Amino acid sequence: MAPGVTSEEKEKHGQASKDSFIHISNPHLEKMKEDVLYHFALGTGTHDFPALFGDIKFVCVGGSPSRMKAFITYMAGELGMASPGCDYPNICAGTDRYAMYKVGPVLSVSHGMGIPSIAIMLHELIKLLYHSKCSDVTIVRIGTSGGIGLEPGSVVITSQSVDATFKPQFEQVILGKSVIRSTDFDDELAKELMECSKEIEQFSTVIGNTMCTLDFYEGQGRLDGVICSYTEEEKLQYLNAAYDAGVRNIEMESSVFAAICNLSGVKGNSEFLNPWFHL
Amino acid sequence: MAPGVTSEEKEKHGQASKDSFIHISNPHLEKMKEDVLYHFALGTGTHDFPALFGDIKFVCVGGSPSRMKAFITYMAGELGMASPGCDYPNICAGTDRYAMYKVGPVLSVSHGMGIPSIAIMLHELIKLLYHSKCSDVTIVRIGTSGGIGLEPGSVVITSQSVDATFKPQFEQVILGKSVIRSTDFDDELAKELMECSKEIEQFSTVIGNTMCTLDFYEGQGRLDGVICSYTEEEKLQYLNAAYDAGVRNIEMESSVFAAICNLSGVKGNSEFLNPWFHL
Repeated sequence: MAPGVTSEEKEKHGQASKDSFIHISNPHLEKMKEDVLYHFALGTGTHDFPALFGDIKFVCVGGSPSRMKAFITYMAGELGMASPGCDYPNICAGTDRYAMYKVGPVLSVSHGMGIPSIAIMLHELIKLLYHSKCSDVTIVRIGTSGGIGLEPGSVVITSQSVDATFKPQFEQVILGKSVIRSTDFDDELAKELMECSKEIEQFSTVIGNTMCTLDFYEGQGRLDGVICSYTEEEKLQYLNAAYDAGVRNIEMESSVFAAICNLSGVKGNSEFLNPWFHL
Repeated sequence: MAPGVTSEEKEKHGQASKDSFIHISNPHLEKMKEDVLYHFALGTGTHDFPALFGDIKFVCVGGSPSRMKAFITYMAGELGMASPGCDYPNICAGTDRYAMYKVGPVLSVSHGMGIPSIAIMLHELIKLLYHSKCSDVTIVRIGTSGGIGLEPGSVVITSQSVDATFKPQFEQVILGKSVIRSTDFDDELAKELMECSKEIEQFSTVIGNTMCTLDFYEGQGRLDGVICSYTEEEKLQYLNAAYDAGVRNIEMESSVFAAICNLSGVKGNSEFLNPWFHL
């Protein structure tokens, strides 16, 4: 879309030192008296961030608000922090843009569908962690996706997020100009997640590339959208080419998730259960 | 992002004849026994679409579920169809992806934030209208946006949706290839909406271009995201250039909304109240 693609940010990536604190790549923030996280209905002027969030070590994000509530309820049980009849209040009750839940060191946040929706959430989430003075934070995106060439019910841990042309990059448009950002995920975290999967022995799990598209219907080769100009053969050709490029699943948020984690010095990865299948 | 941009679809637009029924640009749909609208939790095998939706003439769409419920409650009053203590059930209660409400000939649907999120909703909405055998349907996107060079509280009716380089086009990636689609809105509908505004005399209203971005923070020149690599001067230069190109407000959904309405022969327009201001 936009002209003047530059690759300068490709080089920047990797320079964000992997110390334990959150990096803010915005010199303007230090000059602001108050930071309002509009889409969370939270602000540094109205909420004590270190007291509310300072102990967070793990953030799990996913599309659906109700699933993220179910997840925190499950986590409370796993951590031995559940109490009978206990409900988990939505920390972002002042808005219906996103939902947020917390139990102990775990935060669970919904992000809606698509790159723009998760990007707004991530900008405000990373600022929340920064203002809360959190350290050693790991963020995992969990969710469902469409699998390619895998057994039903298997899990994909993402090594790289690739775009619709199978390139491991995210195009960020800044003031009308296009900048390319890296979409590699943290290797170590991928291996740790794989170890967890082996211990649990409940899911067939692979580490592979995740294709991130801007569209669910035409963008992923579906034949049942309101607009479709290709044949089933053309769809299969495309998905086979994706498989050959190492793609094992398709979803709509991983590329900007990787890009923002990389620029903020946060360990991040995506892990998907594949309930439906393209191939 | 994707190579091989073609302009073939630019020519197709305008050929969709403006008769009163919904156009489906997908030959595969006719061969399907059942159509499941996954993200609405509705399907032609489980719901009687003509009985439920056949009388719809107006669809209003907006980002937030609670606002779309408030809107249907307001519409019920305006149409004299409200009853005391009456609640409006969410037709999509089986999912938390979108919310949908109906009163008489008016449907109100939420779409979340960003192009991918509204695109999924529109694919399923247009199929819903088609299966319901609706005719003469008008769709209006209503919402808030950031104004450029306008009085606080004014309303923008969109003539064209433009991208971050001010071009009136939407880039749809199909099986990894880029196709350019038209983002003109219906002129007549824009004039009708302008007439309504004059009758009401409540809001200062203009017809102008709406810029549709893929990102809320860096994409719209905000200085308070977690990443920001530009100065306030560079931001102002960009917004001034947008104003000079006829842009009067900025949001994140109008381009694909125009493109899908055009390809489906549906009269569509966007109307925005501008609660915040870039310039």
